[in-house]
Amino acid sequence: MRSSRRSEVDPFIVMDVMEQARVAEAAGRDIVHMEVGQPGTPAPAGARAALAEAMQGGAAMGYTVALGLPALRARIARLYRDWYGIDLNPDRVIVTPGSSGAFLLAFTRLFEAGDRVGLGLPGYPSYRQILKALSLEPVGIESRMAHRLQPVPEDLPADLAGLIVASPGNPSGTMLDRAALAALIEACAANGTAFVSDEIYHGIQYEGRAVSALEISDDIVVINSFSKYFSMTGWRIGWMVVPETEIRAYERLAQNLFICPSHASQLAALAAMDCDAELQANLAVYTENRRLMLDGLPQAGFTRIAPPDGAFYVYADISDLTDDSLTFAQEVLAQAGVAVTPGLDFDPNRGARTLRFSYATSTPRIAEGLERLRRFMARR
Amino acid sequence: MRSSRRSEVDPFIVMDVMEQARVAEAAGRDIVHMEVGQPGTPAPAGARAALAEAMQGGAAMGYTVALGLPALRARIARLYRDWYGIDLNPDRVIVTPGSSGAFLLAFTRLFEAGDRVGLGLPGYPSYRQILKALSLEPVGIESRMAHRLQPVPEDLPADLAGLIVASPGNPSGTMLDRAALAALIEACAANGTAFVSDEIYHGIQYEGRAVSALEISDDIVVINSFSKYFSMTGWRIGWMVVPETEIRAYERLAQNLFICPSHASQLAALAAMDCDAELQANLAVYTENRRLMLDGLPQAGFTRIAPPDGAFYVYADISDLTDDSLTFAQEVLAQAGVAVTPGLDFDPNRGARTLRFSYATSTPRIAEGLERLRRFMARR
Repeated sequence: MRSSRRSEVDPFIVMDVMEQARVAEAAGRDIVHMEVGQPGTPAPAGARAALAEAMQGGAAMGYTVALGLPALRARIARLYRDWYGIDLNPDRVIVTPGSSGAFLLAFTRLFEAGDRVGLGLPGYPSYRQILKALSLEPVGIESRMAHRLQPVPEDLPADLAGLIVASPGNPSGTMLDRAALAALIEACAANGTAFVSDEIYHGIQYEGRAVSALEISDDIVVINSFSKYFSMTGWRIGWMVVPETEIRAYERLAQNLFICPSHASQLAALAAMDCDAELQANLAVYTENRRLMLDGLPQAGFTRIAPPDGAFYVYADISDLTDDSLTFAQEVLAQAGVAVTPGLDFDPNRGARTLRFSYATSTPRIAEGLERLRRFMARR
Repeated sequence: MRSSRRSEVDPFIVMDVMEQARVAEAAGRDIVHMEVGQPGTPAPAGARAALAEAMQGGAAMGYTVALGLPALRARIARLYRDWYGIDLNPDRVIVTPGSSGAFLLAFTRLFEAGDRVGLGLPGYPSYRQILKALSLEPVGIESRMAHRLQPVPEDLPADLAGLIVASPGNPSGTMLDRAALAALIEACAANGTAFVSDEIYHGIQYEGRAVSALEISDDIVVINSFSKYFSMTGWRIGWMVVPETEIRAYERLAQNLFICPSHASQLAALAAMDCDAELQANLAVYTENRRLMLDGLPQAGFTRIAPPDGAFYVYADISDLTDDSLTFAQEVLAQAGVAVTPGLDFDPNRGARTLRFSYATSTPRIAEGLERLRRFMARR
């Protein structure tokens, strides 16, 4: 069978750890999951109730228009007023099949085959693989701890067609303040480099609030999702905000690439946006978990960590402990019963000396995991 | 803002008709919808009940594994036994975000930027636009009524990297018999042309049963969906079947491009597969609608129609009436109150002299629409 080079994307290394964790659990072991990048909580009760009601009412759930239900687009526009004080034209909001769908739309709209697109390392691995599958060239930019593991203008090659920035970042959890974000956006504008702002961890923040790229410029693409703050990973529903002049072009692309996002997920997402109390309760859990992590990880011996401004990750430099994070993660799993993610997925070279700890699970499990890590490191 | 040539896809011409229909309805007019390519029925009651129950039980609905819930993949494999007598390895089944997601996976896996990919005209317009957005070159192959508006081996350029065939076809409703399908698959194999079989209208058939490409070869890609027979368009859930040697490559692509299909839609789809009675009742409606159409359309004056073996469309040559199908469709809407689709979306040149009539709506509405068409043509 014929196959393309562009589809030969890297495997997820964390999948090996997850499979080992699954095997251990199938054999009866108790595993604390600090590897999983998703909330342990379901969609908010209001979202689930809205969908159950629609099901019982026999809603037809046919195709929606490609850009999403008008009520959902308007409600998302209101979020920009509530969160950032921005008056956003709802027509600029495009509902997508997860942020994954938004990346596919943005990358095909912005870039021609062969274009070079920059992204900070460490960073979300699928950026690189989606770019590759679309015949684009991902350009990894190794960021520095002094810059909160985020790229800075001096890091950017002049020939980039685009730059993807995430704040809060995954795996780092670090945020760009307004000045740092503005400097990147301005540098890109000066070079004709399209700026794509991944804001999917907005709302999950502990030190001040995340700044949206929309507060700085309209000539950018913002991508967001209901997966994290709204606790709806498996629903595959997200959105993007595009310049007014681009709406029609994205509409035509979305009609053809996706037809529409899941109708059921759109209904659930709309209801989720009015579930503040439950979502803030989830955030309070992350806040407490983070407090435990910032206390417990250094006590256990993981002392070199990036400033975890947001998201639900702690990214640790373990170069004092190993130069083989994959083997180290396997030892932690086997000996401590804690699943953690080796940094290799996020930073193909330097990730051999880093780990990502997720604290998206429940507080008692985080406490248990930290105790196990403390004992493991003490024995080591 | 930067933008790519590959994203400059054609607009859907039918959208203008649909918008005009919407405006007419908003003004209080009654419109019969023969333009819409989706069932008027909701997802089967069993599917809706299963999801409502999951919602009330507080199901977490996190990410599933990228290739889909194992139970759903196994159940789809069983469908191949029930429908075609094929013993299919469930590992070869990949659950996707609609057939749209399956096309994105297949086209990126099979083809390199610049590759030429053939498709029959008339045909589903999004094939061409998805190919273009992925930097591939769609090669339209004008098929002939003598070949049931399907391509034949003699039509195929030797330099095609791939060929997409749909049986039953959209807009034609015509099917390839086993010999015709085998001839195409063999011709492609001889030329190193990848064969992609779009089988999303399987199950909706009136003259014999649709033949799956999997009955003829394993070295092909089959794409299917829950949208049509299972009446789940807006759920965006479909599947593909790939060769065993390709499973891992597709898994890595799917992990990165989509993470997973909607968890809720997967649960609903699994339940839908056991709703035979309701689905066969839907099919009985299409069967009766088709009988009315084959009677009523020629009576009204639409006499040159493709053999509608399956799906829920009648494709009519109206070259005896007009060479401007768009204007003609607008007249039918304005004067008869029936929305129909001009052929231009399906066949950019010859479609100026064709119309597609959908009979996916209810039988009383089809009867009403046919009566309106008869009066319109009599006045004309």
